Amino acid sequence: MPAPQPELPEPAHPDIDSMLSRKFGKEIANYFSGSPLNRVSFLRPDHTFLSQALKHPSTSFLLFNKLEPLVKSPTELAYAKYSDVQPVIGNDPFAKTEEELVKEYDSSTYIPQLVFLGLDGHKEGLIYKDHYKGAPFFALDITPKDAATAAAEALIKDVESKGLSFSKGRMHLSLPAQEAAIYAEARHLLDWNARNPFCAACGYPTLSVNAGFKRTCPSKDLAASVQNAENTPDRPPCATRTGVSNLSFPRTDPTVIMAVVSSDGQKILLGRQKLWPPYWYSTLAGFLEPAESVEEAVRREVWEESGIHLGRVVIHSTQPWPYPANLMIGAIGQAIPGGEEIHLGHDAELEDAKWFTADEVRVALRVGTGGPGEPAGPEYKEGGLRLPPKTAIANQLMAAVVGGFLGGEAKI
Amino acid sequence: MPAPQPELPEPAHPDIDSMLSRKFGKEIANYFSGSPLNRVSFLRPDHTFLSQALKHPSTSFLLFNKLEPLVKSPTELAYAKYSDVQPVIGNDPFAKTEEELVKEYDSSTYIPQLVFLGLDGHKEGLIYKDHYKGAPFFALDITPKDAATAAAEALIKDVESKGLSFSKGRMHLSLPAQEAAIYAEARHLLDWNARNPFCAACGYPTLSVNAGFKRTCPSKDLAASVQNAENTPDRPPCATRTGVSNLSFPRTDPTVIMAVVSSDGQKILLGRQKLWPPYWYSTLAGFLEPAESVEEAVRREVWEESGIHLGRVVIHSTQPWPYPANLMIGAIGQAIPGGEEIHLGHDAELEDAKWFTADEVRVALRVGTGGPGEPAGPEYKEGGLRLPPKTAIANQLMAAVVGGFLGGEAKI
Repeated sequence: MPAPQPELPEPAHPDIDSMLSRKFGKEIANYFSGSPLNRVSFLRPDHTFLSQALKHPSTSFLLFNKLEPLVKSPTELAYAKYSDVQPVIGNDPFAKTEEELVKEYDSSTYIPQLVFLGLDGHKEGLIYKDHYKGAPFFALDITPKDAATAAAEALIKDVESKGLSFSKGRMHLSLPAQEAAIYAEARHLLDWNARNPFCAACGYPTLSVNAGFKRTCPSKDLAASVQNAENTPDRPPCATRTGVSNLSFPRTDPTVIMAVVSSDGQKILLGRQKLWPPYWYSTLAGFLEPAESVEEAVRREVWEESGIHLGRVVIHSTQPWPYPANLMIGAIGQAIPGGEEIHLGHDAELEDAKWFTADEVRVALRVGTGGPGEPAGPEYKEGGLRLPPKTAIANQLMAAVVGGFLGGEAKI
Repeated sequence: MPAPQPELPEPAHPDIDSMLSRKFGKEIANYFSGSPLNRVSFLRPDHTFLSQALKHPSTSFLLFNKLEPLVKSPTELAYAKYSDVQPVIGNDPFAKTEEELVKEYDSSTYIPQLVFLGLDGHKEGLIYKDHYKGAPFFALDITPKDAATAAAEALIKDVESKGLSFSKGRMHLSLPAQEAAIYAEARHLLDWNARNPFCAACGYPTLSVNAGFKRTCPSKDLAASVQNAENTPDRPPCATRTGVSNLSFPRTDPTVIMAVVSSDGQKILLGRQKLWPPYWYSTLAGFLEPAESVEEAVRREVWEESGIHLGRVVIHSTQPWPYPANLMIGAIGQAIPGGEEIHLGHDAELEDAKWFTADEVRVALRVGTGGPGEPAGPEYKEGGLRLPPKTAIANQLMAAVVGGFLGGEAKI
């Protein structure tokens, strides 16, 4: 069975009766974007707000075990309540201010990672300072570990006994769009916290603060006083403490992904990696490097991977991709006349790259899409081109090209 | 004196006779993009190539002391030759393979950071494997430190005796565009290496490899065998060694910056921070967060900082910004009718935000631009609006809006 292909989300602000809309058309909102949550990021340092949000009856907790989310089914996330998670997190991890927590820091104490995701203003819920309304959403890592092991294992057993499960792999690509966006925010933040327990500037353990959106490097660690020769909790100076450091904040890697058209606009360049199943191709992609514009990164990656020389490049849309931390920047690029010869010898990344006709791509978008390894639709003929599903921005870029992006009115 | 405002760079591939160009107009190449260098990123693991590039007579080294670049004047970088830097770096830091260097890793040995920036194919230079031609460019950190102190101090004395100097502050904004792009790549990479001496996954020191574009976490450290109780160079397991980890690669933070227009397209929203000099305003900006599309990040930041509700958002252009590691994603957004009331109470970031008429902005772009604290041009009247210079994407976004971006033909 191919994975269900959910409709792409509507833009968060569907106001398209504007000058920009009349000129540029409707916004392309890719899968994993379109969150219904208001992040109210400025409230993350406010422990009074966080405490109220934590215990409000309208609050939902999305649970993760080893980065796998709790689900009811492949198309529905499952949420826990405060009473479910209280044995794992304690009564109120937000009872103290950030300043107090930093002062009392003890790196030997394991604190299950909790992230405040935002308020769903479409639902009845908390009202804070009159302005900020909605049902709060949190993500919580309940991977059994250290002092939290027993409580976490009990919670896992409990939710599994109710028929819920932790979803492996990328089944999340079959979630409805808004659920997928909530999951993406949660996964990206939990993964970032889990990957970065130490300070890259000084090597000492860090503490999660700002509701999961910052890791700070405390100047004292109570655990250190029993470990070092001087018997003191003081740690060496650290550059991240003397100003705002990007290292303290979540990392997101800008990545370029591009539909490449021939100079006459009639053909589309696609490539495949060695490990992909037969007939499977997609658009080229790669990380944007330091000090590159998006257009430069697109031209460099395409030349390095395929030997093709691009002229004009236009940004189409973007897609958050939480595996682990990408912003996919989708573009359409056009080869220059005489720059269309494929050469795979620069970079060894692709097994093959090929020019396909617009018709081949159009047919494959209709009958041959799916995740790698999934069977295609009923009209697919063995040996035909296979392409990624609608949930991938690659699919949207190809659809834009064969749908007339190069001609007609501007629809970026 | 206002800083000289260099012409913005031409796109690297000025082929605009294409369908995309006819439809979307000329590419906007912002300052710090437009590098003349071919990064040949796939040659970075090739130590034979790097050795040849290092010692080639056509090779240029851009020197940095505490992240300040060596310059002849505010409008010209200065470069050193291999013979100049040899006492600092030794004969050939690329004599061994990456595998050998990792095996022999000793965290107590200081290695001055060297970064391969690329080949300038417009200049005569190295020819490698027939395909790859041009004059090689490297960046080198000669901040006096540890065993490199004496050689670095001698080199600094030598270049300063020739009338060269290490440029403080942001004088680099007066470099010609292509020089600025080389500087931006160099600064971003040196800063990233300097900020990240430790592994965020395990807390142990890391080793620069891949010509400065990767930091790896070796499994052994010769220095450790005299430090730990077991007398062994072995280090604990680290997650970055069991697969490709984003932590090993340079970080670039996607940032959104946006010209906001009123729903009728007649006014532009600008804000100011408390520390800015009087009359100085600019477009709003902020970091893109995990699991946001660019459009969502723009709408969130604008609402959080100013209370304005945006509808349609369109990406305009991007700018690398090496202070320390940003990709500025420039956008134009339009307020929804009824969503134009300014409220600064959500986030305390701005001191003021105000709607300006297109004419006020047009005049200020002509007579009132410059860096913060710099005097304006001769036609400027005290009390008039001050705006950032052409080298800032903020200026380009405002120029696009008052230049007719909202009307006429699509010119993204």
